[in-house]
Amino acid sequence: MYPQSLEKLISCFRILPGVGEKTAERYALLISEKPQEEVQEFAQALLDVKQNVHFCKICGNLTEHEECEICSDSERNHRQILVVQSPKDVIAMEKMGEYKGVYHVLNGLISSTKGIMPEDLNIASLLERAGDADEVILATNATVDGETTAMYLDKLLHAKHPGILVTRIAHGLPAGGMLDYADEMTLSHALTERRKMQ
Amino acid sequence: MYPQSLEKLISCFRILPGVGEKTAERYALLISEKPQEEVQEFAQALLDVKQNVHFCKICGNLTEHEECEICSDSERNHRQILVVQSPKDVIAMEKMGEYKGVYHVLNGLISSTKGIMPEDLNIASLLERAGDADEVILATNATVDGETTAMYLDKLLHAKHPGILVTRIAHGLPAGGMLDYADEMTLSHALTERRKMQ
Repeated sequence: MYPQSLEKLISCFRILPGVGEKTAERYALLISEKPQEEVQEFAQALLDVKQNVHFCKICGNLTEHEECEICSDSERNHRQILVVQSPKDVIAMEKMGEYKGVYHVLNGLISSTKGIMPEDLNIASLLERAGDADEVILATNATVDGETTAMYLDKLLHAKHPGILVTRIAHGLPAGGMLDYADEMTLSHALTERRKMQ
Repeated sequence: MYPQSLEKLISCFRILPGVGEKTAERYALLISEKPQEEVQEFAQALLDVKQNVHFCKICGNLTEHEECEICSDSERNHRQILVVQSPKDVIAMEKMGEYKGVYHVLNGLISSTKGIMPEDLNIASLLERAGDADEVILATNATVDGETTAMYLDKLLHAKHPGILVTRIAHGLPAGGMLDYADEMTLSHALTERRKMQ
């Protein structure tokens, strides 16, 4: 119904997560109204990301260099490895600002529903790195896929490096969370993982 | 926090309507995972829209030709002009499939809050075209800006072409609408614009 170039752009926008027909239309129409230079900049930014950004050869995070900034930072503790699902999680932890170790980015989670198998993830290099580590912290999401992946990695790490310290981030009531709004699973975790005060 | 190229792409995605920081991040991360060819196609589609798509010189709708397909269709009634805010509205009317006249796309609405003045809209050429028309149907939205624009155009059209037939699309209960869920303005319109049955 729209001119051909516009229909093509609409179909391109639809590859983005959560973008349906209506949203893609709004995006494409906005682009048609933007100044030439701004759209050129946008197109160039798309190409630059594919050109410049790739996985860090050590941890699997996104970087423009061979090793990411965190892996090449000698002031961080390289014997503590925090394992996360995606680069977004690294950013979230870094914003928190208290973690001084390094990361390992799986770039996905094991998922039977999505058909993602362990061999699709950045796991092999974690097993190698873990040999030199004091602690591997499994910080995948508290979801079904996140728990499955954590349990799988825990077994694998112990099989390869007997005696290794593998920990899991705590589950419980979120900051500001109220008991009567928390779901049963959260309450169950909060109770089971209770700790002694002072 | 992200690699520079990725931060740049995130800021580009933020120009899209309703896209905040988190959504732009998700979009950019997805792009970094897509195959090279798909991203190149996306970048090309952006450039093509700016290159090929422009306003129809008659009605202001988007087209890749000098005149849009509707304006150059001799089987349509060129003496009946339906005035809408944007190309999206043309698509909506065409999907409905009952209208056989032509369109005029204002590419915006008069808006005091957004600072959009009549001279920012595609109005001058409407006044010219209207001289040859049997009817001008004002089909702007039933919003404050839509009503303001319709009233303004009605006055302008009558001043320039005394005796011209200018109509406004009906307001009332939408199809499937229920009285007890309708707002007061809708009910007021539905009552005022009631018509004789049979």
